[in-house]
Amino acid sequence: MAENTQAALDAQADVVIVGAGFGGLECAMGLGRAGVDTLVIDRRNHNLFQPLLYQVATAALSPADIAEPIRKTLGRYQSVRVMLAEVTDIQDSAVVLSDGRRVGFGKLVIATGSDYTYFGHDDWREHAPGLKSLREARKIRQRLLMAFEAAETTRDPAKRKALLTTAIVGGGPTGVEMAGAVAELGRFMIRRDFRALEVRDMRVLLIEAGPRILAGFPANLSDYAAGRLRRAGVEIMLDAPVEAIAPGELVVSDAPIAVGCIIWAAGIKPSPAAGWLGLEQAAKGRIPVDDGLAVIGRPDIYAMGDTASMPTPLPGLAQVAKQQGRWLGARLVAEISGQPPAETFRFRNRGNTAMIGRNAAVFDFGTWQLTGPLAWFLWAFVHVALLVNFEKKLLVAVQWTARYVTRQRGARLIEEDNPTVPRID
Amino acid sequence: MAENTQAALDAQADVVIVGAGFGGLECAMGLGRAGVDTLVIDRRNHNLFQPLLYQVATAALSPADIAEPIRKTLGRYQSVRVMLAEVTDIQDSAVVLSDGRRVGFGKLVIATGSDYTYFGHDDWREHAPGLKSLREARKIRQRLLMAFEAAETTRDPAKRKALLTTAIVGGGPTGVEMAGAVAELGRFMIRRDFRALEVRDMRVLLIEAGPRILAGFPANLSDYAAGRLRRAGVEIMLDAPVEAIAPGELVVSDAPIAVGCIIWAAGIKPSPAAGWLGLEQAAKGRIPVDDGLAVIGRPDIYAMGDTASMPTPLPGLAQVAKQQGRWLGARLVAEISGQPPAETFRFRNRGNTAMIGRNAAVFDFGTWQLTGPLAWFLWAFVHVALLVNFEKKLLVAVQWTARYVTRQRGARLIEEDNPTVPRID
Repeated sequence: MAENTQAALDAQADVVIVGAGFGGLECAMGLGRAGVDTLVIDRRNHNLFQPLLYQVATAALSPADIAEPIRKTLGRYQSVRVMLAEVTDIQDSAVVLSDGRRVGFGKLVIATGSDYTYFGHDDWREHAPGLKSLREARKIRQRLLMAFEAAETTRDPAKRKALLTTAIVGGGPTGVEMAGAVAELGRFMIRRDFRALEVRDMRVLLIEAGPRILAGFPANLSDYAAGRLRRAGVEIMLDAPVEAIAPGELVVSDAPIAVGCIIWAAGIKPSPAAGWLGLEQAAKGRIPVDDGLAVIGRPDIYAMGDTASMPTPLPGLAQVAKQQGRWLGARLVAEISGQPPAETFRFRNRGNTAMIGRNAAVFDFGTWQLTGPLAWFLWAFVHVALLVNFEKKLLVAVQWTARYVTRQRGARLIEEDNPTVPRID
Repeated sequence: MAENTQAALDAQADVVIVGAGFGGLECAMGLGRAGVDTLVIDRRNHNLFQPLLYQVATAALSPADIAEPIRKTLGRYQSVRVMLAEVTDIQDSAVVLSDGRRVGFGKLVIATGSDYTYFGHDDWREHAPGLKSLREARKIRQRLLMAFEAAETTRDPAKRKALLTTAIVGGGPTGVEMAGAVAELGRFMIRRDFRALEVRDMRVLLIEAGPRILAGFPANLSDYAAGRLRRAGVEIMLDAPVEAIAPGELVVSDAPIAVGCIIWAAGIKPSPAAGWLGLEQAAKGRIPVDDGLAVIGRPDIYAMGDTASMPTPLPGLAQVAKQQGRWLGARLVAEISGQPPAETFRFRNRGNTAMIGRNAAVFDFGTWQLTGPLAWFLWAFVHVALLVNFEKKLLVAVQWTARYVTRQRGARLIEEDNPTVPRID
């Protein structure tokens, strides 16, 4: 690299990793253990354990229970630096930040994940937040709780019923988990804490555009989940694409439904990172990579997780990103130290799971499946085990045990001083 | 009450309590145990354990650890209802809500607490948030952490030093606790998590307008606290009233100081409730009450805690409000059941305390005092014991133990996607 180019850079590292999700962090830890000069850039200061974000939204856990400061995770590796910034472009051998600063790289790892897509209706996001950040989870929690508060004080029965109706759009694992949790939370709160509300006035709608929920699972697990959700009071609407969303209203199959709270759990799109490269993009705007996670046409750049597309496509799961991150870290360490690197990443399926509610979950291990209380217990065990450190594991275990015994949810906080009351006209 | 007046009311109760702080909740629980028809109105859905709010601001605890939904606390009392609403006036025998609704009362209890005063400079609040709500605590946490993040990436040494300067205005218990916690947090983060920062570039300023910190404690405890804070690296500025506050800057004794984060812990004013009554107000706008907590001139209305002024003034402490609430609950139960009520509330001093930092706190029991590690341990023990329920006690105890051993703070989260970088020009 020429001296005058280097002078224009604001920072530089042998390996730059953009995104500190499951994949980026694993990769950074591998490089850190080998002492490779690494810079991790993320627009948030924390790594989020997204599989449990729905529990923050439904007041079962606190943000800090499922989020870990990136600096804390990587602090022990002296060769790893962390930068809180947003990447907006790649130019030659440098990433460009939103404030115009440029960070040079020897090798670049893109692990920028995915976001919800509103299928061209970005204005829906305001009325139907998705579960992608702590901020959105808190927003959902406050809207849910505020709808119940407003229902308690209204004297108009139609308005009360509307406020007690929660719509969850999307029947994938997140939608199923939200629907089960909202039904449980609402039923419990009405029975114990609200004097003017009746459980029969509460509705939880799970709205799926396709013919069945949990489409990524075998059909028998979809049936089991649907049965359990219906028993918990969830109304499942299938083949029901959402046509319009406005404050307090949602239109499905030409029929408007008045709702107190809308939660979006449909349609994932990859991060915009493919656009930074100026190369041909894979399906849905993903970055095409080879079997070794190298970007096609840019051997100094790697991509993984939800934003990358391998020759044999893999599901958008945390375990895929984690395995890719670990593998890529080892590959880069080998390359940098002059050893022959492994050529091909192979995914090992650890099982796909979704929580439905108290004593009910599904597990799909490919060759065999599991449902019922045992799956539920295994789900809880696996998720506690996956949390980053001992303190968090213990905190979550304490809260889940307390919740299982008391059915109380401890984090039912509306944190704003003047929260918006849901608009039902 | 005439039939036509009743018809105009949106709700009604034998006893209406405005404010679910320490005093309001204790009073409601006493009335609930006796089955008295009670309505509790608060503009927040949770009761906040304010003595630990500084720990949320300094990333040691999560909001849910120190806040409990009011409905959860009062849910077991069938005769007690809860309403999330803001009271803005009192007319005859009804309170008026911000949306114009009216709630009639037989007896009214005003327990609306206090707020920070900015001594006529309300525009300072935006740049120097105080510790009165979860929202403000989160705001302070994010600003503190963002200042360190911005310092890590700047290349300008003067800007870096400014960003690493935190000013705490007010040398009372909250200011002292914040100063000690910020010094501890900053030192630890710089040593472990930031590569470009040096501990010697960090400044923590504790700015007090009067001649000593902890003015409510005996002078020897003030001296002890000042000595411990100075050893922890806190610069104490005495006789130093703040003259101006702007983004990234604060003026003390005509000298501007560039700062990354300003925290307000000075000057308490009572809630505006005295203005609702249209009666003569006590000093600083408090509501004058007799020895039985009845408002002078309105025997059907009672007031307590920070917003009330007794013939013999009491300090603005949680224990005062709690004792008054318990006493008033019993008095009202006696009155309503036709028994002769106790006439005079007597405060029993349980000791006044402030935390300074690791292994250091002060206790003032009037006749004797305590400092050092034993006071620190007693402080922790008392505060865990005062938390509302077993789950929260255990959660906080786990986190404090983990923090004591690892010196890590688990809740170092910047929750906004695009947090504002502190402005230092």
